[in-house]
Amino acid sequence: MKKKICVVVASRANYGRVKSLLIEIKKNKKLKLQLILSASAILQRFGNVLDIVRNDGFKPDAIVYTVVEGENLETMSKSTGIAIVELSTCFANLKPDVVVTVADRYETMATAIASSYMNITLAHIQGGEVTGSIDESVRHAITKLSHIHFPATEKSKSRIIKMGENSKFVYNTGCPSIDLIKNTPIRNNRYQINQNGVGCIIDFAKPFLLVVQHPVTSEFGKGFKQIQHTLKAIDKLKIQTIWLWPNIDAGSDEISKGLRIYRERNINSKISFFKNFEIDDYAYILKNCICAVGNSSSFLREGEFFGTPVVLVGTRQNGREHGKNIVKSNYNNEQIYNKVKKQIKKGRYTSKQIFGDGNAAKRIVQKLISSSPPIQKKITY
Amino acid sequence: MKKKICVVVASRANYGRVKSLLIEIKKNKKLKLQLILSASAILQRFGNVLDIVRNDGFKPDAIVYTVVEGENLETMSKSTGIAIVELSTCFANLKPDVVVTVADRYETMATAIASSYMNITLAHIQGGEVTGSIDESVRHAITKLSHIHFPATEKSKSRIIKMGENSKFVYNTGCPSIDLIKNTPIRNNRYQINQNGVGCIIDFAKPFLLVVQHPVTSEFGKGFKQIQHTLKAIDKLKIQTIWLWPNIDAGSDEISKGLRIYRERNINSKISFFKNFEIDDYAYILKNCICAVGNSSSFLREGEFFGTPVVLVGTRQNGREHGKNIVKSNYNNEQIYNKVKKQIKKGRYTSKQIFGDGNAAKRIVQKLISSSPPIQKKITY
Amino acid sequence: MKKKICVVVASRANYGRVKSLLIEIKKNKKLKLQLILSASAILQRFGNVLDIVRNDGFKPDAIVYTVVEGENLETMSKSTGIAIVELSTCFANLKPDVVVTVADRYETMATAIASSYMNITLAHIQGGEVTGSIDESVRHAITKLSHIHFPATEKSKSRIIKMGENSKFVYNTGCPSIDLIKNTPIRNNRYQINQNGVGCIIDFAKPFLLVVQHPVTSEFGKGFKQIQHTLKAIDKLKIQTIWLWPNIDAGSDEISKGLRIYRERNINSKISFFKNFEIDDYAYILKNCICAVGNSSSFLREGEFFGTPVVLVGTRQNGREHGKNIVKSNYNNEQIYNKVKKQIKKGRYTSKQIFGDGNAAKRIVQKLISSSPPIQKKITY
Amino acid sequence: MKKKICVVVASRANYGRVKSLLIEIKKNKKLKLQLILSASAILQRFGNVLDIVRNDGFKPDAIVYTVVEGENLETMSKSTGIAIVELSTCFANLKPDVVVTVADRYETMATAIASSYMNITLAHIQGGEVTGSIDESVRHAITKLSHIHFPATEKSKSRIIKMGENSKFVYNTGCPSIDLIKNTPIRNNRYQINQNGVGCIIDFAKPFLLVVQHPVTSEFGKGFKQIQHTLKAIDKLKIQTIWLWPNIDAGSDEISKGLRIYRERNINSKISFFKNFEIDDYAYILKNCICAVGNSSSFLREGEFFGTPVVLVGTRQNGREHGKNIVKSNYNNEQIYNKVKKQIKKGRYTSKQIFGDGNAAKRIVQKLISSSPPIQKKITY
Repeated sequence: MKKKICVVVASRANYGRVKSLLIEIKKNKKLKLQLILSASAILQRFGNVLDIVRNDGFKPDAIVYTVVEGENLETMSKSTGIAIVELSTCFANLKPDVVVTVADRYETMATAIASSYMNITLAHIQGGEVTGSIDESVRHAITKLSHIHFPATEKSKSRIIKMGENSKFVYNTGCPSIDLIKNTPIRNNRYQINQNGVGCIIDFAKPFLLVVQHPVTSEFGKGFKQIQHTLKAIDKLKIQTIWLWPNIDAGSDEISKGLRIYRERNINSKISFFKNFEIDDYAYILKNCICAVGNSSSFLREGEFFGTPVVLVGTRQNGREHGKNIVKSNYNNEQIYNKVKKQIKKGRYTSKQIFGDGNAAKRIVQKLISSSPPIQKKITY
Repeated sequence: MKKKICVVVASRANYGRVKSLLIEIKKNKKLKLQLILSASAILQRFGNVLDIVRNDGFKPDAIVYTVVEGENLETMSKSTGIAIVELSTCFANLKPDVVVTVADRYETMATAIASSYMNITLAHIQGGEVTGSIDESVRHAITKLSHIHFPATEKSKSRIIKMGENSKFVYNTGCPSIDLIKNTPIRNNRYQINQNGVGCIIDFAKPFLLVVQHPVTSEFGKGFKQIQHTLKAIDKLKIQTIWLWPNIDAGSDEISKGLRIYRERNINSKISFFKNFEIDDYAYILKNCICAVGNSSSFLREGEFFGTPVVLVGTRQNGREHGKNIVKSNYNNEQIYNKVKKQIKKGRYTSKQIFGDGNAAKRIVQKLISSSPPIQKKITY
Repeated sequence: MKKKICVVVASRANYGRVKSLLIEIKKNKKLKLQLILSASAILQRFGNVLDIVRNDGFKPDAIVYTVVEGENLETMSKSTGIAIVELSTCFANLKPDVVVTVADRYETMATAIASSYMNITLAHIQGGEVTGSIDESVRHAITKLSHIHFPATEKSKSRIIKMGENSKFVYNTGCPSIDLIKNTPIRNNRYQINQNGVGCIIDFAKPFLLVVQHPVTSEFGKGFKQIQHTLKAIDKLKIQTIWLWPNIDAGSDEISKGLRIYRERNINSKISFFKNFEIDDYAYILKNCICAVGNSSSFLREGEFFGTPVVLVGTRQNGREHGKNIVKSNYNNEQIYNKVKKQIKKGRYTSKQIFGDGNAAKRIVQKLISSSPPIQKKITY
Repeated sequence: MKKKICVVVASRANYGRVKSLLIEIKKNKKLKLQLILSASAILQRFGNVLDIVRNDGFKPDAIVYTVVEGENLETMSKSTGIAIVELSTCFANLKPDVVVTVADRYETMATAIASSYMNITLAHIQGGEVTGSIDESVRHAITKLSHIHFPATEKSKSRIIKMGENSKFVYNTGCPSIDLIKNTPIRNNRYQINQNGVGCIIDFAKPFLLVVQHPVTSEFGKGFKQIQHTLKAIDKLKIQTIWLWPNIDAGSDEISKGLRIYRERNINSKISFFKNFEIDDYAYILKNCICAVGNSSSFLREGEFFGTPVVLVGTRQNGREHGKNIVKSNYNNEQIYNKVKKQIKKGRYTSKQIFGDGNAAKRIVQKLISSSPPIQKKITY
């Protein structure tokens, strides 16, 4: 009988991280893919991933609405509670052999709890990394609930083992997000991307910037001020800019408010705002922008692979492993402005493939087939 | 202004573990106690702790019903989800400075998530220990969400630090449950305890056994068979026995069923069944029984302090630190029978005070006053 | 394509009421049966209906745990909320054409809301009756949410139309519970029933009483006193008695406590306590007892069909249509005692078939096939 | 002791309807006001009512996040479930003597269920009216759960009594929303209103239109097409227009999408879009516009009082009592266009005060003080 592997995709970012894995699971004869979409992955406001998933040939086994509106710390917590209730029912129906959860967003904790509490083997991708925000706590707590670990780097692997996990079930496979972007083209004009943007029209034949700045939950209440600095710096640079709306983390409302006010007052700015992208469009943009600004983890991960110059703003990625393409800045418009200038001048970096060589999904699938950890965990010391 | 310390009590066992701390917080002028009762702590079926709490002079700030009936793995998970939803609302209303959570039961995870997600400092008592059941995973996951740690032993402290926690905020205070039992009397006749039991009348002037056997969630589905072995051994011993019903963990239903069937068929057995005890009655029983049988963590903790001979059945406490009073047995009626015989013959042990000297609550209160860890956590390696 | 008919069964009583309908739907070629089990129907404590349902050849499409423990008014309300959340997901997955809900228990409101809010045609069985308890409000509120009505009597039909419902979609079909019991045998000895009881052994060759007394939610807090009166009366009668535990309504805890205390103190009483019965066993008992005592709606419904003498205690069935077999009593032990005595003397009554002739399910199925009410309701005046 | 009256406000519309009542309760010495804000009333996206409420001098006793994101039929149902869970806890804490719920939005059902299930007297404002959408079913179901009724018209009162409610507790008080607008001024320039709009600047000295078009839940999936007709008609009229975003009902997303697309493509249109208004600003606009277009119930209620010409589009208000100021149109742009033209030509109507004389709140307060209906309801026939 096929081993049933259930993957829970909870956001647009999640999907990008596991798409190559979904493909590999689906085509493997020993495995049966079960796909659940939840949280922001099915909300129009975040660019419904559902349609993209279907276009990619996947058929979700369950679609669960779990987000309690409010975008503050309280509703972040409540949404996690609702997600546990819903996912418990899903898992009871689907009876997976292994549940796969990805990374460290607050709602991935729901997947981890429902799965481990129900004695279902839990596999975790991208554990062992270090960052800021609540993600830092969530990631390591998920590690302590997981039975199989697929970290993306050697350092992450070593950290997971240090935390007391059984090294027999910790595999450095590289990150499946790299698999997907390996063959991203350089500089062909992607005019059609403009269709989903609001604001100026981007000329992809000319230099452009990319900005992605999410809230930092542990600095809740400061997002509105923080985004002013980035906006001021970008505005002053007078370079055409692709700006992605923030994700659904607590504090998202504050940042969105800042962006909306800016937009209403600067109808003729050089910024175009986007809700989300197809994965390969995003890869194309990240690869070809002259500098990426903000705090997206994709800057450190896919950005390093591409050698994209990055100005990393604030604390969200504090402590995460990164390449030389990263230059850090405080929430300070002058500092951001100056560092972007320097990065543009410096130009593209050479990648060291820190987060993998693009064959992660294949390795993960092999281990999903061969690994059978005991359901009863025990710390190694 | 007083620092607001919110303690969430989720079961009868929880309350015993923190009662001494509640007393110390309440009488300290720099702290304001906020008390929440939830989960099985407010259910009649488990001997409503609410009345006991009120008799002890505490006034709960919130009472939240969170248990989804079913007593299986799915409802264990769902109950945790509901608890997160409810506790989020509580914390939003009460606005505590620090939330205190205790030990490792599945529902304590709800406290940990709601608190840490809402940027409220989380303090964890009894972290760093090692056991079986889902508790093992839960305990370490809570450690990774907590800002302040109050382990009960040196080994536990060292484990928490090894997991990457900042040693500045890890304090070995001993276990507050020991505080409470320090002055438990020996061998006065407590005839009135019989009032709440069902079955034979215990003569406290004569030798008696204590049995407490909870389900092991990671062995869900095997509880009915497991309890038969213990029942058979005890029945054969023909010694008067105080038997405590199991707690609310997934699998409780299976064990209860075993007990009910036994009871109906053995009206005249020497066993008396109890739903719960006043804390000092339980301490009295644990101290004065000639042998304790089953898998309660109190056998290793308070039992070691008293020097009570114990036959520890099965895997629930696997790996937990313990003293010489513990003898282990498989789920096997002959083995249990023989080992109880031996332990009775051996008699009382001498305590090494592994879990503390009885001054834990005082130490914890001092640290709650003086510690101010950053809300943004970061692993130390 | 077959019309999908989704029936939600939320308790043991529910199942008895619709079993004949489930059979008819299942064997009809134009319909596809979807079966959901929820609430107390899947709890061990109430005699898991799940096994019975499976033995009867049905395969549930979903099993949803919805009961928040506590058995008080607050948890009754919360359980309804959880049930709405869960049933919404179920309906979104199953996409039924018609949802069927039965009677008036608090949790049936969840079915009615999820269905009507999701623009799914809602059919209601047993609307238009009059009783006490919260059931009275729930029943009529469900009528106002329902698109098709299957009342069991002419008076009920007329009441539904008076409430402003379109008479085109109100059909007096009789009650499907009568279908099931039409051929219940008289007086064969059913010794095997004793297996599930606790207490004395019932000799079915000799006269016996039946007692079923549920809580009245609108008199919450008074159940413990109320049950004392019934217990005292029955005890004094010295006739062997089959006593069914109360259902899960708020207040159930109070009544159970009363029963438990009585049982512990009267080991040798002539009462045998049962958690639940197979449907035909219950029918057999109700038909053959010399008097039924308490407040079960089955006394008025199936009891009238059998002509069973009944002493109806308290307000729970206030206002419900009934036959001559019913004699009413207050919560007063002497009154109950005397009236039972009289009813026994009087003996069996002749039935007028108020609640139908035993062909209800067939009629309902025909209407489910032919009726297509508009999803937009409108009051008729 | 003061009678505790708990009012649950679940949306911006709700608040407008009960503000005059909140004022009267607050200043009455025999009553104590308890105020709960929930659902869309506390969401930024719908113009957080919280700030307005506080500016008006009220202090909410509880703020509960209940909206599950998705804006479809499934999440509408789920949100109601979550609201029941949360409001149960609120009522258990606040212990009100009477709960007041308003009108017929889907989430008001949560208030009605939690209150009636917990044996708390439920008072309902604006019952007995007739409309389309799910509101029609919700409104009458709430009537069947309520103990005291405050309908706004004689016809509504008569309908409630016909539904079987006890006429002793049905009072035609008029609608409290009329209280608030009685003294709304004519034609002074309110330039500052423009600050919150997006789009063209409204010159209040010149003629302007008002458009408010909400989704119709029973026509879910058709909203996008429906709004095109209204947009086309208004665009063609070339009159400056104040357009209010739709409420949170299922289908809101479809309408919003239509509006957003229009707005992006018609930067220079004569429409200004608003998320919400202060109550007196809205009254001013409704009173002074030359025609109101769409399906807001305020057009029939406050609009009749002002004599504002209205073109009522579609089925949402089907069957609701209205004055001569209402002209109906299908979802058809030519029809809408022509009827608006005619209404503008016709000019202001004379009010018949169908929905009250502006003293409703005072009457309601008197009845809240003097009425004590039994908690056990019973239909009158």
